[in-house]
Amino acid sequence: MKERVVILGGGAAGPKIMAKLLRTKNYDCQIDMFTEENMISYSACGMPFYIEGLIENYRRLIVRTPQQFEEKGANIHLGKKCIKIIPDEKKVMLEDVNTKEISYADYDKLAVTTGARPFVPDIKNINLKNVFTLRKLEDAVNIKDTMLQSKKAVIIGGGYIGIELLEAFVVNDLHVDLIERSSHILSIFDDDMSDLIQQHIQNKNPEQVNIITDDEVTALVGEEKVEKVVTRNGKIIDTDMVIISAGVIPNTEIAKEAGIELGVHNTIKVNHRMQTSVKDIYAAGDCIENYHLVSRDYVWIPLGSSANKEGRCAAINIAGGYDTFPGILGSSVTRYIGFTMSLTGLTEKAARTHGFDVITTVTTKQDKAGYMPESENITIKLVADRRTQKILGAQAVGAGDADKRINTIASAIMADETVDDFLHLDMTYAPPYSTAIDPLLSAAIVMNNKLKEND
Amino acid sequence: MKERVVILGGGAAGPKIMAKLLRTKNYDCQIDMFTEENMISYSACGMPFYIEGLIENYRRLIVRTPQQFEEKGANIHLGKKCIKIIPDEKKVMLEDVNTKEISYADYDKLAVTTGARPFVPDIKNINLKNVFTLRKLEDAVNIKDTMLQSKKAVIIGGGYIGIELLEAFVVNDLHVDLIERSSHILSIFDDDMSDLIQQHIQNKNPEQVNIITDDEVTALVGEEKVEKVVTRNGKIIDTDMVIISAGVIPNTEIAKEAGIELGVHNTIKVNHRMQTSVKDIYAAGDCIENYHLVSRDYVWIPLGSSANKEGRCAAINIAGGYDTFPGILGSSVTRYIGFTMSLTGLTEKAARTHGFDVITTVTTKQDKAGYMPESENITIKLVADRRTQKILGAQAVGAGDADKRINTIASAIMADETVDDFLHLDMTYAPPYSTAIDPLLSAAIVMNNKLKEND
Repeated sequence: MKERVVILGGGAAGPKIMAKLLRTKNYDCQIDMFTEENMISYSACGMPFYIEGLIENYRRLIVRTPQQFEEKGANIHLGKKCIKIIPDEKKVMLEDVNTKEISYADYDKLAVTTGARPFVPDIKNINLKNVFTLRKLEDAVNIKDTMLQSKKAVIIGGGYIGIELLEAFVVNDLHVDLIERSSHILSIFDDDMSDLIQQHIQNKNPEQVNIITDDEVTALVGEEKVEKVVTRNGKIIDTDMVIISAGVIPNTEIAKEAGIELGVHNTIKVNHRMQTSVKDIYAAGDCIENYHLVSRDYVWIPLGSSANKEGRCAAINIAGGYDTFPGILGSSVTRYIGFTMSLTGLTEKAARTHGFDVITTVTTKQDKAGYMPESENITIKLVADRRTQKILGAQAVGAGDADKRINTIASAIMADETVDDFLHLDMTYAPPYSTAIDPLLSAAIVMNNKLKEND
Repeated sequence: MKERVVILGGGAAGPKIMAKLLRTKNYDCQIDMFTEENMISYSACGMPFYIEGLIENYRRLIVRTPQQFEEKGANIHLGKKCIKIIPDEKKVMLEDVNTKEISYADYDKLAVTTGARPFVPDIKNINLKNVFTLRKLEDAVNIKDTMLQSKKAVIIGGGYIGIELLEAFVVNDLHVDLIERSSHILSIFDDDMSDLIQQHIQNKNPEQVNIITDDEVTALVGEEKVEKVVTRNGKIIDTDMVIISAGVIPNTEIAKEAGIELGVHNTIKVNHRMQTSVKDIYAAGDCIENYHLVSRDYVWIPLGSSANKEGRCAAINIAGGYDTFPGILGSSVTRYIGFTMSLTGLTEKAARTHGFDVITTVTTKQDKAGYMPESENITIKLVADRRTQKILGAQAVGAGDADKRINTIASAIMADETVDDFLHLDMTYAPPYSTAIDPLLSAAIVMNNKLKEND
């Protein structure tokens, strides 16, 4: 008899599980996916670039349509929100988002891929028009439409999404005030690297961009639409629209209610096979806890790249195979108008928090032979442990090819290499691509010299 | 008393040794560098791009001038060719290239960094005008001057330098016949990848480029200047200039005569500390044999990137320190007008030669999110060993960001990773930089599936 697989959520991990199960030979299953949204399997990461205007039609962000999955034999149920998981009866309770009608679905295996949703701070008059969060495809469409009629925007929160939307708005000639509660934008980076990023952003478009740190929006003002924002420090800023990109929270309330064990930040705890604490219930994607390979601690770093890997792992195990997902390094990248910011592993501050004997270096080099016209600077910060001499993490920012270096060193960190192992790496060299001693190897040599001085 | 260090050759490795020694504290030495050329420390790898016109002045290729080294206390002797090493007396015999005057220099430590020179096949009338090899800076200047007055060129040999000069000439509106003796250009790649490269080159400028394989030039024809080339297969091709880029041979005759042990292709054998078989004589750069970390065999892959690493290692040991250089992967990259070709580790053919139980995959994917305007294809060939499941090598070609992937997997090969280890690597993802599952990880997943089918 066919196994019944129910998948809750249609973001990145859910469709990945479905696609992998549909391709798995020798596993005969009936797949039902339930989502409260009216679309599945679209690139949330692409939405800022759609808003910017780099992608004409939002439909290009759709990886696979419900029809494409249904043609392969899966059942996609749009507008159906799971409101309860009942593990004892191996069923889920569903509510139609329009009719509020209740229904049930039985499962043999359940995959919880309910993702995360924007965190909305406590701000007065948050329900005014032209105030947005960016999570669903329709949010992207609405933000773009409003942007095209706006001259001024306020972005609340300077994380990756905030910075990507800043690029989108600036390119579309808006004036933007970006308000960050902490002392630095992109606080996922160390402060010194975040300073470099902020300098670049400010210098690039000094007339158009105003970054405000150590402050937060307490109230919105307006009749119907938002017209002003008011901050704790007393700033009053005119605006045509407001974006709230102040972080996300995991959609795990139903999992918790069902008795599934939670981890950090209320994410779902899973083992290396993506199994939750409850039999036959798997989880993957933005709603789960991650194991960090360097700190060997549990973290929550929800990223599309991990969601896909976790989905693949969950699918193999759901289908009766055996696969493990070892964990993450937290590798990530974004850009702001020709300037790349990328990191992997632990920052200096994270490494200190975890008790490493931290040593760091910061080096700035040209990313290609200096005489090549396309040559640009990148600044690389390395973080290592003084005692084991192992590489703990790296951050790279600049107009140069930064993410290439981060992926190369991520591979070394994954392999638990020391700085001395790494600096002998045979990297490719030709003048349009790098320098004879790649900036990454230069950084490692500087770190090695510093480690030896400390011997 | 100061130690006397003599360095023979001023290409990449020699200046690297000199620069590192000059920076070494607690090592008091007198450094004398001898070269038959009239310049040292210039980027030979940059010469094709100077010829292309990307670099205005050839002097920009000079990394450090003799004066810069002399200001730091080294003695640079231009136009002085070493014609004999006398290990028993710890001295070298030198000839002035202009006056032919003989002189001697004593050493405590000797560094042989004599590099390599172009291999010139046996071709009739090779001494006609407008026939060039590219090795020295003056060659680059002469080739550029002649190119600017030419309409047609013949390139003999389709290796990296041949392809880079092809780009230079095509961009400068010349018609080029490229004649390759073997069945494929860039035979450092596997034939299937070389075919993709050749297709791209032919399709890019079909009117301007004619690639001829399985043929070789036997004679040149002309009064004073070359006017035609004649091939073994009877082709007669009109031309204004000829480039011979048919490989290189190491400058090791004086080392051999001095009793220094040679390795493959008459290169100098060194240990991991860059010591030759003769006491106090070190060698580095294009003239030495390389240890290949994957095949665990000796090869000759002369590259600027290795020369710098070897130079650094030699300098540390010359100065009484301890450093080892583990070996190479043969990582390399070049481009042809927006198309990147890059590799690391063993090709399929090399892996078979070395007795591995070879399994390969070839996958083509977009290098960035498909909806991003800058997205381009790359084709990745992976080579693995069926029994150990280890990654042996990778080749990547395409308009997309290929060398980024090669460096990332080079790092994994260096760490002796299996395909299954590697496919879990946490690579950065954002739509302008990659896909949620990077093409490299896709390739590894396909390889892993293939390995499992074979289990």
